[in-house]
Amino acid sequence: MIHPTALVSPKARLGKDVTIGAFTIIHDDVVIGEGSTIGSHCEIGYPTPLAPGEMLVIGKGATIRSHSVFYQGSTFGDRLVTGHRVTVRERTVAGDRLQVGTLGDIQGKCTIGHDVRMQSNVFVAQGTTLGNFVWLFPHVVLTNDRHPPSNIEVGATIEDFGVIAAMAVVLPGVRVRTGALVAANSTVNRDVEADTVVGGSPAKVLCSTADLKLPDGSRAYPWRRHFHRGYPEDVVAAWVKQFS
Amino acid sequence: MIHPTALVSPKARLGKDVTIGAFTIIHDDVVIGEGSTIGSHCEIGYPTPLAPGEMLVIGKGATIRSHSVFYQGSTFGDRLVTGHRVTVRERTVAGDRLQVGTLGDIQGKCTIGHDVRMQSNVFVAQGTTLGNFVWLFPHVVLTNDRHPPSNIEVGATIEDFGVIAAMAVVLPGVRVRTGALVAANSTVNRDVEADTVVGGSPAKVLCSTADLKLPDGSRAYPWRRHFHRGYPEDVVAAWVKQFS
Amino acid sequence: MIHPTALVSPKARLGKDVTIGAFTIIHDDVVIGEGSTIGSHCEIGYPTPLAPGEMLVIGKGATIRSHSVFYQGSTFGDRLVTGHRVTVRERTVAGDRLQVGTLGDIQGKCTIGHDVRMQSNVFVAQGTTLGNFVWLFPHVVLTNDRHPPSNIEVGATIEDFGVIAAMAVVLPGVRVRTGALVAANSTVNRDVEADTVVGGSPAKVLCSTADLKLPDGSRAYPWRRHFHRGYPEDVVAAWVKQFS
Repeated sequence: MIHPTALVSPKARLGKDVTIGAFTIIHDDVVIGEGSTIGSHCEIGYPTPLAPGEMLVIGKGATIRSHSVFYQGSTFGDRLVTGHRVTVRERTVAGDRLQVGTLGDIQGKCTIGHDVRMQSNVFVAQGTTLGNFVWLFPHVVLTNDRHPPSNIEVGATIEDFGVIAAMAVVLPGVRVRTGALVAANSTVNRDVEADTVVGGSPAKVLCSTADLKLPDGSRAYPWRRHFHRGYPEDVVAAWVKQFS
Repeated sequence: MIHPTALVSPKARLGKDVTIGAFTIIHDDVVIGEGSTIGSHCEIGYPTPLAPGEMLVIGKGATIRSHSVFYQGSTFGDRLVTGHRVTVRERTVAGDRLQVGTLGDIQGKCTIGHDVRMQSNVFVAQGTTLGNFVWLFPHVVLTNDRHPPSNIEVGATIEDFGVIAAMAVVLPGVRVRTGALVAANSTVNRDVEADTVVGGSPAKVLCSTADLKLPDGSRAYPWRRHFHRGYPEDVVAAWVKQFS
Repeated sequence: MIHPTALVSPKARLGKDVTIGAFTIIHDDVVIGEGSTIGSHCEIGYPTPLAPGEMLVIGKGATIRSHSVFYQGSTFGDRLVTGHRVTVRERTVAGDRLQVGTLGDIQGKCTIGHDVRMQSNVFVAQGTTLGNFVWLFPHVVLTNDRHPPSNIEVGATIEDFGVIAAMAVVLPGVRVRTGALVAANSTVNRDVEADTVVGGSPAKVLCSTADLKLPDGSRAYPWRRHFHRGYPEDVVAAWVKQFS
């Protein structure tokens, strides 16, 4: 299940039933969990002097799509899924079931909870903290330098269930609290309270997430009332119970 | 004209004079029209369980540049041209002469007319509808989820000759009518009338496109009065006649 | 130091100690300076009818990371550094120590000074002019067509020490003068005076850069007062002297 054109270091530790695609490179300091699939044209465990000798650990059942680059020194839980051409640099730690969309760019030294989902072309600056069940929609940018360029990097924090809609920018050090929603194309320059909708540039409070309605008139938030696709069964069961 | 390092499925149906670049993969369910050129490091006909057994059909005279990924189950007319690292997912149908710039990301299930042109790094959400002669400029994002995350996806519609300038976001379900112009970095949250210029976040009506002037004082819109590069001769002849 | 899977034209002129990664293609009209490293899956000297027979010249000590594409007909000084999946088209001329982040897209015919740094996913339109020590932060877009689509392309100009923060758009023909700062997610539609901070859409003057303070109360600008990482020793020495 290793394509004959793939270049796999004999030092890499591959679990059972790992598939490696054509023209893909697996470097030395790499652990890939069983049942994982790495697509074509990838470079996995890319060496960096910023994390010498540190392992890249990818959990079980991962799907990494073509043309992706993962640096050495980061750690991922089980069932990681990526789109194409994803980059993840060194010393990021992520929980189970992280999803990173096509062209996603995670700059390293990030702390990422479980069940985080990023759609296409998200930029996550060094030192960002993402809680659990966070959503980042296409072209979201999370920054870390308040007076660019400077030597003071302060990542943003998105707490559990926080949602950042398409093309929004979150400025350095900003905290988006639990269950909040940042509207598309906003610029968030101060903390956002829990369960609050903000929008605009700079972002202002628009309403409570409790005011958001789906077309059928039911509440859109907390989104886990109605959106369950792909989450673990026990998690979904708890949500159903909570909101019934 | 197939590079010796390319991996071409014997099931793929390649027309005459098709060129396949180095390190490129052509999967089973693929039809490529005569005279087409596929660059290096591409993956064409990427299999997906969302369109099992469905063909990827690329018309005649296509140019697909390096590192691009096309899923099975989409159909393109003749003379498709792409930049580098383009992604197109399953079940998109596009007319002749589609141009997709470098890093373009078309998420699938889209309906695209003829002579549509996208510049670099455009994101087109699932279910988007683009008419004929539509332009999307760099970093445009077309979205489809009004209350993210939800199960209700409603793509945007850009009608014939519509133009979306750089970095603008069009929100789900919005219709940009014939010949309208959305200004750079706008957020469009409601329908745009024909031949109207909108801008800002949220986008407001700025003027009629008839008010836009080129530096020589002539009318900038309808843009087909003066911009003809690369369109078919008979189309250009009709435009010249219409506006003379 | 040329990987056995790399495809290197015998016409390409490689300096001493040049490293070429796996699955990388080096075309005919290419000069690469000594001590340079080209990563995996790149295509260097990509032929284009827009610059027939013109050389791609890359200076000494370059680092070009994986999946990057450089067209023939551009020229770079020494110590070029790129991230992954960078594209640079034809007839761009850049000075020493250019840095282009992952996914950067330089469209060609640009004039770029020395010590310019671009972070991830920057789009630089044809005909852009960048001075020396310019910074472009993630997802910045520099445009060149005032009435898209038209045949009149006028690139933006960013003068020495100018800084464009994340996700900002600079409109065609706009000049951002020496030492100015454009805030994140702004839309700049008119010239920006030297040492001035602008922000918003359209961007308005917010303050003088002299008003910006670091957390310790010291002046944040001119940024070369405190930010020296990676610049040549003689340059840094002159800055230290200037501001002491």
